[in-house]
Amino acid sequence: MPVYKQDTICAPATIPGTGAISVIRVSGPDALEMAGRIVSCKNGSISECDGYRIKYGTVLDEAGEILDDVLVSVFRAPHSYTGENSVEISCHASPYIVSGIVQKLVRYGARCAAPGEFTQRAFLNGKLDLAQAEAVADVIAAQSKSAHKVAMNQLKGGYSNELKQLRDNLLKMTSLLELELDFSEEDVEFASRSELRSLVDETIRHINRLTDSFRVGNALKNGVPVAIIGSVNAGKSTLLNSLIGEERAIVSDVAGTTRDTVEETFNIGGVLLRFIDTAGIRKTDEIVERIGIERALKKMSEASIVLGVADCSRNYENLISDIKFLLENVNLEEQRLLLLLNKCDVLGYGNVKNGSIFDNKNVNMVNNVVSFVDNKINNADIITISAKTGFGLSTLLERLSVTASSIIGTTDSTLVTNIRHYEALSNAAVALSRVSAGLSPAIIPSGATSGTPSPSTNFSDDGSTHATALPPDLIAQDLREALHHLGSILGDITTDEVLGNIFKNFCIGK
Amino acid sequence: MPVYKQDTICAPATIPGTGAISVIRVSGPDALEMAGRIVSCKNGSISECDGYRIKYGTVLDEAGEILDDVLVSVFRAPHSYTGENSVEISCHASPYIVSGIVQKLVRYGARCAAPGEFTQRAFLNGKLDLAQAEAVADVIAAQSKSAHKVAMNQLKGGYSNELKQLRDNLLKMTSLLELELDFSEEDVEFASRSELRSLVDETIRHINRLTDSFRVGNALKNGVPVAIIGSVNAGKSTLLNSLIGEERAIVSDVAGTTRDTVEETFNIGGVLLRFIDTAGIRKTDEIVERIGIERALKKMSEASIVLGVADCSRNYENLISDIKFLLENVNLEEQRLLLLLNKCDVLGYGNVKNGSIFDNKNVNMVNNVVSFVDNKINNADIITISAKTGFGLSTLLERLSVTASSIIGTTDSTLVTNIRHYEALSNAAVALSRVSAGLSPAIIPSGATSGTPSPSTNFSDDGSTHATALPPDLIAQDLREALHHLGSILGDITTDEVLGNIFKNFCIGK
Repeated sequence: MPVYKQDTICAPATIPGTGAISVIRVSGPDALEMAGRIVSCKNGSISECDGYRIKYGTVLDEAGEILDDVLVSVFRAPHSYTGENSVEISCHASPYIVSGIVQKLVRYGARCAAPGEFTQRAFLNGKLDLAQAEAVADVIAAQSKSAHKVAMNQLKGGYSNELKQLRDNLLKMTSLLELELDFSEEDVEFASRSELRSLVDETIRHINRLTDSFRVGNALKNGVPVAIIGSVNAGKSTLLNSLIGEERAIVSDVAGTTRDTVEETFNIGGVLLRFIDTAGIRKTDEIVERIGIERALKKMSEASIVLGVADCSRNYENLISDIKFLLENVNLEEQRLLLLLNKCDVLGYGNVKNGSIFDNKNVNMVNNVVSFVDNKINNADIITISAKTGFGLSTLLERLSVTASSIIGTTDSTLVTNIRHYEALSNAAVALSRVSAGLSPAIIPSGATSGTPSPSTNFSDDGSTHATALPPDLIAQDLREALHHLGSILGDITTDEVLGNIFKNFCIGK
Repeated sequence: MPVYKQDTICAPATIPGTGAISVIRVSGPDALEMAGRIVSCKNGSISECDGYRIKYGTVLDEAGEILDDVLVSVFRAPHSYTGENSVEISCHASPYIVSGIVQKLVRYGARCAAPGEFTQRAFLNGKLDLAQAEAVADVIAAQSKSAHKVAMNQLKGGYSNELKQLRDNLLKMTSLLELELDFSEEDVEFASRSELRSLVDETIRHINRLTDSFRVGNALKNGVPVAIIGSVNAGKSTLLNSLIGEERAIVSDVAGTTRDTVEETFNIGGVLLRFIDTAGIRKTDEIVERIGIERALKKMSEASIVLGVADCSRNYENLISDIKFLLENVNLEEQRLLLLLNKCDVLGYGNVKNGSIFDNKNVNMVNNVVSFVDNKINNADIITISAKTGFGLSTLLERLSVTASSIIGTTDSTLVTNIRHYEALSNAAVALSRVSAGLSPAIIPSGATSGTPSPSTNFSDDGSTHATALPPDLIAQDLREALHHLGSILGDITTDEVLGNIFKNFCIGK
């Protein structure tokens, strides 16, 4: 366990700048005494105040002038966020006052907290496990209902409980195996090999389900990737701008939500979408442009949803050629394609309010396109739009919302959203695969659950029976390794380096 | 008095964005009940909780999922900021959570507060007078020690007490005068005319001192204006950049202080300076450039400090001509001139660490410049610098600090920093001047304090004695007008329009 510095730390817990209220957090053995020394209260001392009480007082500056009147919320160990004695000093939200109070705390012996240090202390004091501590940052950063739900579930320990269950089962088996080692000369088996194999295989399947969920979990946390793909001048950037404009108008009643988001990320129906505008696709010998196009194709292959933009004001052959390119390059097994026939306003379509009016020639062309696509793929999603006039965009947003929600799915099963957890789970699965391979298949009784094929491992059986069974000490070693990786997620096993990496991405004051 | 809406209001009180803690304020008759309904607490109900207590609880979203765990600080009328029942809900600083909680409060009947509405309620409930309420915004916006001190003094009622004293004295006199009116047929004087005149003149002097302080108060609040003036290519912009760079380095340990400031404003030794870079001065027929130069001269005339930048790498005649221009155009009675001989590095000066080494020729030139200036003005402030290498800039910053502090002066006497107060005081002074003129000078006994000339009024005595004395009802009317203007500062007399104008510039949640 890393060394726990027993000093008293302080930091502003609200975003710096001029608002109504700022809060400064102080935590550590001297927090109450220190607050008592810098805040003069008329009604009783802070250091003797009960927890969950508020004191009103005054902070003076060095010259003895009033810096501010403040409210001090008192929390006593262990009933505080960090588990230590803590106060929260609530002052006028002036950067001058906040820095004045922090400076005064430092003069009285507090140390300015490192990013995430309050949450780190909560972890070190056993108030949260490591996965929960990481969830604090995710809860704060969550920009959509679904991302918030996953983070909150992790914070409330749902995720941790699932991992603990896996770990406890393996731990029990490992203990039995290790007990065998103590009696190795007597050749007894405390741990039933068939039970162990079935447990290991089940655990591997469970872990694989978790690692598989990372794609969804990551999309949920960072936004479902939506690539906007099309030939040059198909109107991709206009589309992005119009979508963002539309969506901004939709979310504008929720103050502050768009403040810290990337320009191209937004929330549709509780799901975050990450729009990726790309270079126009065309055959070219120009080297810089070709790099751009290669990138566009790479982005397309990584996206969950492809918005294929085709310019329907061009002639039929060009249009069909663009659509063919999309149908050939999008992986329809894994990706969703929304085909957009853009610039319908040029065909006189977007000017008509209640839709569906082209002149005869154009109606035929669009119908031909639709049947062409329908012949190629089932249930093609084709929307006629004008990015310029906004025609069809509300339909597009609806379809995007439905498609994105179906990708995210219901979030009732646990999702892995953290790359550290993903790596630890993958490492645990590799170690367990070695365990699975090391246990002789001949021992498995017929009818055991391992009749289902075990997940692919790098260790193929060589067909022999008892010959490949590893001795219990080697199996135990692999089990220990898997336990180590699972334990690292919850913080049962940590190093200063791991903790440093986790908490450095927190904001100061958390 | 404006109508006071008796509903319950809510708003985020911290800056939106992802930080550690966000606070949502709720105030009004239903604040506690409303908080009790949206926050589930395990240990007792919020609506029955004592004031100055904190409750820990959970907020669920519409679907019954956990939105967040929160701390609720409970304040009971009248012991709260607004004087009403209030709660402060402290949650994770996620815009998603904050807007979720605000939306839930609104669903339960709260109204989103207008900017400044919490402080407006504090005013309407008599917790603060209007000058104090205005000081809240100034305290929050104060960027320097001196501005903070003035705002805090105003918030703590120092300024209000001074105005109340003035007003009470006048009010007593007015009452006596009005008593005379009731007995007008008996021709008695309850109010001694000599006392009244002496009081009015003293009040006018006091008010004039306050209005005179507005220039300083305004400089203190918005920064002491420093114009950087010089001929084309004298290095003005380089100087500004270097100064800002230097100063940024100096203040960088105070997090957040520069966030909301204008690029060219910064704090030296507790005083805010506002640097104004200007177009280079030269004779030109080019019309756009001439407009720029006219503006530069206007800025120069408005500045409290002029940094005159002269390029000492040019020949002596050019240098002297530039300096002559500055000496002729700066109003040395009212403005401070710091003369900077820039580009000393070109003369080989800035490369030498311990200073004062030019080659003979250049030493002579600089000495000649110094004696030229010394002959023109006493105690000329001349600093040799290189904006490019940074040579001399620390000396310049020191001088700027001393000069700015001497302009601001000691802030122990009350300063007017608010244009609304300035206007009200000026109007009060005009009304009192009419009173002063209307009281016959012949009544004044010799030796009274009014022997000092009264401040200039638009109403000149016509030399007669009793003939110019106005009847008490007209004098009382002017006194009432002066009282009205003084009262409007403290909010004894207000209209919805005045309040609207004052509080609309507040942030939401204050």
